[in-house]
Amino acid sequence: MTQHFSFDLGVTDGGARTGLIRTPRGDIRTPAFMPVGTAATVKAMLPGSVRATGADVLLGNTYHLMLRPTAERIDRLGGLHRFMNWDRPILTDSGGFQVMSLGELRKVDSDGVTFKSHIDGSKHRLTPERSMEIQRLLGSDIVMCFDECPALPADRDRIATSMRLSMDWAERSRAAFGDRPGHALFGIQQGGLDPDLRAESAERLRAIGFDGYAIGGLAVGEGQAAMFDCLDVAPGQLPEDRPRYLMGVGKPDDIVGAVARGVDMMDCVLPSRSGRTGQAWTRRGQVNLRNARHADDPRPLDETCTCPACTGFSRAYLHHVVRAQEIIGSMLLTWHNLQYYQDLMAGMREAIGAGRFATWQESFHATRAEGDIEPI
Amino acid sequence: MTQHFSFDLGVTDGGARTGLIRTPRGDIRTPAFMPVGTAATVKAMLPGSVRATGADVLLGNTYHLMLRPTAERIDRLGGLHRFMNWDRPILTDSGGFQVMSLGELRKVDSDGVTFKSHIDGSKHRLTPERSMEIQRLLGSDIVMCFDECPALPADRDRIATSMRLSMDWAERSRAAFGDRPGHALFGIQQGGLDPDLRAESAERLRAIGFDGYAIGGLAVGEGQAAMFDCLDVAPGQLPEDRPRYLMGVGKPDDIVGAVARGVDMMDCVLPSRSGRTGQAWTRRGQVNLRNARHADDPRPLDETCTCPACTGFSRAYLHHVVRAQEIIGSMLLTWHNLQYYQDLMAGMREAIGAGRFATWQESFHATRAEGDIEPI
Repeated sequence: MTQHFSFDLGVTDGGARTGLIRTPRGDIRTPAFMPVGTAATVKAMLPGSVRATGADVLLGNTYHLMLRPTAERIDRLGGLHRFMNWDRPILTDSGGFQVMSLGELRKVDSDGVTFKSHIDGSKHRLTPERSMEIQRLLGSDIVMCFDECPALPADRDRIATSMRLSMDWAERSRAAFGDRPGHALFGIQQGGLDPDLRAESAERLRAIGFDGYAIGGLAVGEGQAAMFDCLDVAPGQLPEDRPRYLMGVGKPDDIVGAVARGVDMMDCVLPSRSGRTGQAWTRRGQVNLRNARHADDPRPLDETCTCPACTGFSRAYLHHVVRAQEIIGSMLLTWHNLQYYQDLMAGMREAIGAGRFATWQESFHATRAEGDIEPI
Repeated sequence: MTQHFSFDLGVTDGGARTGLIRTPRGDIRTPAFMPVGTAATVKAMLPGSVRATGADVLLGNTYHLMLRPTAERIDRLGGLHRFMNWDRPILTDSGGFQVMSLGELRKVDSDGVTFKSHIDGSKHRLTPERSMEIQRLLGSDIVMCFDECPALPADRDRIATSMRLSMDWAERSRAAFGDRPGHALFGIQQGGLDPDLRAESAERLRAIGFDGYAIGGLAVGEGQAAMFDCLDVAPGQLPEDRPRYLMGVGKPDDIVGAVARGVDMMDCVLPSRSGRTGQAWTRRGQVNLRNARHADDPRPLDETCTCPACTGFSRAYLHHVVRAQEIIGSMLLTWHNLQYYQDLMAGMREAIGAGRFATWQESFHATRAEGDIEPI
């Protein structure tokens, strides 16, 4: 196994590409979907089950972990991998996004951000240097630069100012990260939906130099069309020979569209969060298991799926346990959704590798357009 | 595999005994602990995981299942085994106990009980005949007679009247159950803590004739000493060549004491319910994972336990996920508790088989007396 972080670009098919990220903790096949393990757990899943779906890498949240149980405690306990019993790669975000979305009384200055914990109101501060320290204490394999995420809606000046501050912080993140063989640091492109600001951001990041490049500031309510417009341009502004990571995306059709536009990595809470509210994602679109139409349905959620929810149980059972608010409902639907997402990625990797991604996309959209199976 | 229900008494060591219940769906090694799968799920566990702990049989609740999703629906879907994906034996209670403890506006007459659902207030009726019908629709392997459970505290007259009504209902249950090869019907001894009433009840049941005999009306707040006093007498009043099932028991030391007094089967929600509130049971007694003493403890909950909680995670992690109210906390602690209970039963079966159950009990109590490991 390699002692270094590297990225091998594989096959390109239109804008889409396959690749292999090598890390000392294992390889990541791209395009890759990263399940989110916010508080050192992918909610309602054991880590072995997450791996069984085909996930090569998890995402951990700096913001949540710094507040509880704290990065220092995780470090004393041997790092995040040992703590949560996941020995494969972990990517950690920088905390910037959650400080904006979850933190209270946020105050940004040029040096960093001060905020109060959403858990207990305690006061905390994050700077690029502190974010790098926390991610090092966690033992993260792929570290994200600390960036400033403007609350939306924001005008162009605010987006530009925020982007430039984030680029200053990217330089400081790079300096603070230092030289850590086997660990990677990713820069984050910002600039909202403005191609010129995106270009300026990409230029700044390329000048600094990173192991990978994320596209930040999307999937924040702009809608799929606007996001795709941005993705028609943004990936091409980033180095071709480094992984491109679209943060916080998304629904299955968002993911397919992003891959078609040259994105290599994504993460989203959607499959796990949906699973806890009775929502399932299948080849045929979204299925709400709470719906009474499933109450007497002996058929599996998806007869082609290999997950425990589909191989062991009927829609009627899933409906029952969702209605009765049984934990097994969250367990089974989260597993199914994560399995569906990983199968989706595997299908895309195979199609791109075979040079038939356009055909694959047609089939993907056609199956979804059929909608869920007819009620019995 | 046998097509009939049978019980082979194995080794007797003092009052304790081993045995083997044979059913068309598999054998049950006794003494047996039955995890409770109230609403067609052992809460926070997948059925394969329950089996992995060593459980040979599950308990299902007639009261819960008749209300949601209904016995008729489960029957249409192929029975409870298929519905919940558990192909081994299932014992169902009769509904009598939950009607008393959960049902609202309960009205008992000599024919049966009318009550309102705790879920939606809808009105329902249970009689011996209807309870037998529901348990048949569920596809239960071991069916319990429908009995009347008096609300406590109750005086001797009330206990006696209730017991005699339950014995009338036991006759009606027997008649309604009919002849169902491969399925068993158990009578339930009542009579509170009064040995004479217990004797009268046992006499009535033996005259009717059942495949097994339960001891009901205990573990309802009388305390361990009073329960053990009753168990010094009650099992001996029941046929020696049939399984004896103590309903709703209990804590590990209750279970050991009951086995020592000739009980073969038990069930209790304690291991699963405790697991959902951060409580663990180990050889050394009860451990509250919420306690801050575990926050930095890298050691497993029990270094001798083979469950995923103990082999994959530290006490610090369990503490973290319990505090953060993560579902994985319920999953891991429930699994551990069920594993501990099954290991406890396996240990007793082995000791009884080897004729050293007295020594085993000394060791059991001595290890518990040591208490949990010292904080680090």
